[in-house]
Amino acid sequence: MKRFATLLLAGLCCAVFAQAGYAQAAGDFKPATTNVWGAEYPRVDSQGRVQLRVKAADATKVRINFWSNPKADMEKQADGFWTYTTPPMVPGLHYYNFVVDGAEVSDTGSQSFFGGSKYASAVEVPEPGSTYYSIQDVPHGQVRDVWYNSKVTGSWRHAMVYLPPTYETQTKQRFPVLYLQHGGGEDETGWIRQGRANVILDNLLAEGKCKPMIIVMAYGYAKRAGQPAPAVSGPPTSPDRARAMQEMFSAFEDDLTQALIPFVDKTYRTLPTRENRAMAGLSMGGMQTFQITTKHLDLFSYIGGFSGVGGGMGGGPVDLKTAFGGAMSDAAAFNKKVRLVWVGIGTKEPERMYQGVNNFHKTLDSGGIKHIYYESPGTDHEWQTWRRSLKEFAPRLFR
Amino acid sequence: MKRFATLLLAGLCCAVFAQAGYAQAAGDFKPATTNVWGAEYPRVDSQGRVQLRVKAADATKVRINFWSNPKADMEKQADGFWTYTTPPMVPGLHYYNFVVDGAEVSDTGSQSFFGGSKYASAVEVPEPGSTYYSIQDVPHGQVRDVWYNSKVTGSWRHAMVYLPPTYETQTKQRFPVLYLQHGGGEDETGWIRQGRANVILDNLLAEGKCKPMIIVMAYGYAKRAGQPAPAVSGPPTSPDRARAMQEMFSAFEDDLTQALIPFVDKTYRTLPTRENRAMAGLSMGGMQTFQITTKHLDLFSYIGGFSGVGGGMGGGPVDLKTAFGGAMSDAAAFNKKVRLVWVGIGTKEPERMYQGVNNFHKTLDSGGIKHIYYESPGTDHEWQTWRRSLKEFAPRLFR
Repeated sequence: MKRFATLLLAGLCCAVFAQAGYAQAAGDFKPATTNVWGAEYPRVDSQGRVQLRVKAADATKVRINFWSNPKADMEKQADGFWTYTTPPMVPGLHYYNFVVDGAEVSDTGSQSFFGGSKYASAVEVPEPGSTYYSIQDVPHGQVRDVWYNSKVTGSWRHAMVYLPPTYETQTKQRFPVLYLQHGGGEDETGWIRQGRANVILDNLLAEGKCKPMIIVMAYGYAKRAGQPAPAVSGPPTSPDRARAMQEMFSAFEDDLTQALIPFVDKTYRTLPTRENRAMAGLSMGGMQTFQITTKHLDLFSYIGGFSGVGGGMGGGPVDLKTAFGGAMSDAAAFNKKVRLVWVGIGTKEPERMYQGVNNFHKTLDSGGIKHIYYESPGTDHEWQTWRRSLKEFAPRLFR
Repeated sequence: MKRFATLLLAGLCCAVFAQAGYAQAAGDFKPATTNVWGAEYPRVDSQGRVQLRVKAADATKVRINFWSNPKADMEKQADGFWTYTTPPMVPGLHYYNFVVDGAEVSDTGSQSFFGGSKYASAVEVPEPGSTYYSIQDVPHGQVRDVWYNSKVTGSWRHAMVYLPPTYETQTKQRFPVLYLQHGGGEDETGWIRQGRANVILDNLLAEGKCKPMIIVMAYGYAKRAGQPAPAVSGPPTSPDRARAMQEMFSAFEDDLTQALIPFVDKTYRTLPTRENRAMAGLSMGGMQTFQITTKHLDLFSYIGGFSGVGGGMGGGPVDLKTAFGGAMSDAAAFNKKVRLVWVGIGTKEPERMYQGVNNFHKTLDSGGIKHIYYESPGTDHEWQTWRRSLKEFAPRLFR
């Protein structure tokens, strides 16, 4: 008890302002904007280099693990800290952890973001000259935490809802809705915390570049009421695993279409028609988007896949005659019914992902399906690709 | 890149459902409600025992560190996991981390909550028969994430705002406001994520036990625009440190009274009078509450301190003639002006904290200051004390 009292008083009085003063390499390093209050590390310089440190006095080996790079050994200092400075990194938010004697360790200096199915550290490397995802002195929409009761899953589910600034001021107006999904291993908070979707929309709206819209961000994992979670196991290519994933996707599809959409249309001043409803998602969320929207064209008329599209991420061929229950088999009819198909990918994404999306784009082309194809220059399978995707995608909605 | 693709596909397809099947002690252990999707550990049984495990194949020593208990050694298993089962724990949310060869490690199976100035793991031990902080099938208010531009701090600041269910339906009605503060080392998300303030209010409202109110949860740390963060350093008892803390408190006071309150009154349908404004906080937030409200009795008429009150947490004597700028020196005048003073403490809190609050209660008594004193049976300086405090405090507001 006493120990805790001391700890807490210390937390009150000093953990607030971390003591800096660690020897640093040359450069104009500053604490990352993603750090917790007062933490001096990680630090980022104007070249995009990142300095990290972690205390592990008794460890024999400590490695830094940026998820988009090979692991690297950190260097032990005399004071029990291990340090590392990266080469310049591409702008954006980069997940990482330390590996201390074989254990995955979060960085206590960093905020944690839900990614890779766990709370993970991440460092923001600024993009010089980019303000579209920075908070500005413009009218701000509000993000709401909501809980809805889903009969499909038999549980209360949490979602995030962005309402544009004019939602509060134009109280007679009704608004179109974009359903915007996170990726595999992430959750419904990702588009706000990592993606800054609300800030991007506020800024687009202030510049008159997009229509005011509601954005609904749901939790993309689901299991059916009273059922066990689908037993996903076996190697990635196994049919059993694919079947279990489909079970999970199917439960989410029903949750979205039977529970969440009715809840949103009942709770907010929406325009509850297919012409005013869009869906998009990143990675796994993009796959879910294509599966769900093509099956429910009565509900959606705008479709976006950010680094994740039809046919999964493996890059396998898609036969538009049979894919999506044949929804695209008659290109002319599909083009008439669907107002936008949008697919995007980062040029530095893993080859398999890049090819998967690029091949899908080519398949759409050869099948005569009208669509927009976007490449984000220099970015990986990370949030900078998806922030840019949203910035490109949103202005094309509800026109 | 390839590595990342594999990692991500694995994340997509299998991290979703963690593989359980770890040998377990006898008992009816179930995954904690605070776990991330699919994580089987930590597990809690009906006696409140918690089973933990962490993989650290190459480590030589791994300890479990529940913040309210002494550290304990974990036991290495043949498969590279280290395991530990606690004795029965008091109900509530318990912060913890692992210590792997001297490094503090979060549990990847647990959600992370901001506490102790970092993102920390925590496990929820249910309170048998308690439903007041469980989500129920009752009307739900909504929690909003808001950002306001503070001239005091020269920055955009994030706050959480709970609006009661009737805010949406009774669109002509205006509502009283409770400003509710987190503790040292926590942030504005604590009262929702750890404290479940919104759920507690929804449930109280559904039972007709409290008045509909708006709750505003601000970030309690602040520094003045253009100034460095107050340099808090030196031993806990040093006057310099105390002065730096006061600087920080003072910046927060101005931010709250000059930026946040005007923002809230402009943005929401509030009743913007002192009779309809309350402030409360836990631990450091309780100290801030007493400092700020007594100085601004033109703004507030309800005051709550949960495990943190006037005079700090050290339990030192408070002289009501001089404390709070003399606001309580004339008890009759103070009692007439202030509608509620409420102080609470958990009976199992560290002695120093318990005595600090209990002595303050006695000082109020002997000084003739009317107040409510509450003790939470069996709970420590942890969230269960503060959830109970809110449940006791909120029904007394705005009567």
